[in-house]
Amino acid sequence: MRISVPATSANLGPGFDCLGIALNLKNQVIIRPSKFHSVSLKGEGSNNPALKDNNMFISIFNDFYYNLTQKKRHFRFEFFNEIPLSRGLGSSSAVIVSAIASAYAIEGIKVEKARLLNLSLAYESHPDNITPAVMGGFNVASVHENEVKFITKSIPKTLKAVVVIPNRPISTTLSRKTLPYKYSKEDTIFNISHSSLLTAAFMSENWDMLKYASADVVHQQFRMKHMPELFEVQKTALKNGALMSTLSGSGSTFFSIAYSEDSQKLELALKEKFPHFRVMSVDFDNNGVKIEI
Amino acid sequence: MRISVPATSANLGPGFDCLGIALNLKNQVIIRPSKFHSVSLKGEGSNNPALKDNNMFISIFNDFYYNLTQKKRHFRFEFFNEIPLSRGLGSSSAVIVSAIASAYAIEGIKVEKARLLNLSLAYESHPDNITPAVMGGFNVASVHENEVKFITKSIPKTLKAVVVIPNRPISTTLSRKTLPYKYSKEDTIFNISHSSLLTAAFMSENWDMLKYASADVVHQQFRMKHMPELFEVQKTALKNGALMSTLSGSGSTFFSIAYSEDSQKLELALKEKFPHFRVMSVDFDNNGVKIEI
Repeated sequence: MRISVPATSANLGPGFDCLGIALNLKNQVIIRPSKFHSVSLKGEGSNNPALKDNNMFISIFNDFYYNLTQKKRHFRFEFFNEIPLSRGLGSSSAVIVSAIASAYAIEGIKVEKARLLNLSLAYESHPDNITPAVMGGFNVASVHENEVKFITKSIPKTLKAVVVIPNRPISTTLSRKTLPYKYSKEDTIFNISHSSLLTAAFMSENWDMLKYASADVVHQQFRMKHMPELFEVQKTALKNGALMSTLSGSGSTFFSIAYSEDSQKLELALKEKFPHFRVMSVDFDNNGVKIEI
Repeated sequence: MRISVPATSANLGPGFDCLGIALNLKNQVIIRPSKFHSVSLKGEGSNNPALKDNNMFISIFNDFYYNLTQKKRHFRFEFFNEIPLSRGLGSSSAVIVSAIASAYAIEGIKVEKARLLNLSLAYESHPDNITPAVMGGFNVASVHENEVKFITKSIPKTLKAVVVIPNRPISTTLSRKTLPYKYSKEDTIFNISHSSLLTAAFMSENWDMLKYASADVVHQQFRMKHMPELFEVQKTALKNGALMSTLSGSGSTFFSIAYSEDSQKLELALKEKFPHFRVMSVDFDNNGVKIEI
């Protein structure tokens, strides 16, 4: 059985803890019943041998598998990871979602995507990465009585994401701690209105609205202070054809959207200016988690 | 020349100062060149003779007319007002929008709706009522460098608004003063996520999502304290088929949405429980301000 799950970029500027989008940059796992437990790991994280022994995927998978079957069985896990770790591209959400989905799938038990999403919520309190990881596309999500309420919109092929992945992380905890405890009424209204306008822009495919609607005053500036080059990344992106350019999750990756025909120029401009960062142009993903048996 | 402009309900719960919707409850004015200035007023406000002499419509109309033409001319104004005054149904926005539109129209000068909206912004600092008054339908709006950026979505005939109009106003100033100066991060995120989800629900016509998405923690509870019966209005509406039920603007009107086939039952339930309030079932308006020459 092969399972794949997309990277995700959360917040999208003003949509703090509620907006997210899926990227065609994937973690894959092949799982086969086996005499002995064994793990191989290629791609992101493969230079860290600890990840083979202390692997979040395997521990969540085992929990669910045991709960579903009351059996202990051995498997061979082959990981092929494209999602960078600790860079704000939803690698933990990808692990959570794909581990739970795999435990069901390997026993041939059907699980609805909405149910999978709610099971994932137990491991990640915010729905902004797990929702696009499960559903693909652009998503608005909010939690009501331990249930994720969400609306999904697919992204057309005419758009591409361009991501700038710094050579070091911003710690999520540090990043969250630097945020103010309180916000003024004006700042609150600013983000309410911009996140709503951004949502309407995605839903109606009004791409020229993204540059106005993606403004934020609630979290980005505080987090970006931990890596001041990111202000320059944003400026460069917006000057070189990005329709919007925002911190991905709590960073450190910077996420931009461009028309497909502009994405190469944007990618080159960013590569030239930030040679020590990884710059990639990727398609959006509209499928979310995918299982092939 | 005849001009009409719809009532509007702003905020829609979480969308503080940015979401609004237009109702088929209209103010109309007929304007004709005349030897003498004269005014007649029927409907809402007609029991207040001061409104004939100190009339905001006429003063805005005259300012624009003079600026456009450098002429002073006399007109006969016949007002037919359906929009209740000071009840949170956008009566001032209706006056502002229709007065400016009339000054252009009576001279045969074309004015784009987006331009009319930005001219109106000079008289009302929030875009949440003027945008649906100009455009009709559901609107998300935000101000960027003195320009309203907005996205509009029309509302299908399958839905109706049911409004409960109390017999007294909540003062907008008082209502605004009772709001907190600061909001916690949790409350800020709550409204960002709910307003975004509500926007997605309107854009995708996912009406069953309205009941979750229309929750608010930022303004309604503080304003409704000035008229505690409103908590009961909301509860009664949600129990009797309302898809959502929110304070209209800063009140005192309460605004609900229901499927058309449920609206009569909802209207009756509210009428029975609140016999001292006006309860009306009205269609949505998808045209906004309208001029017939």
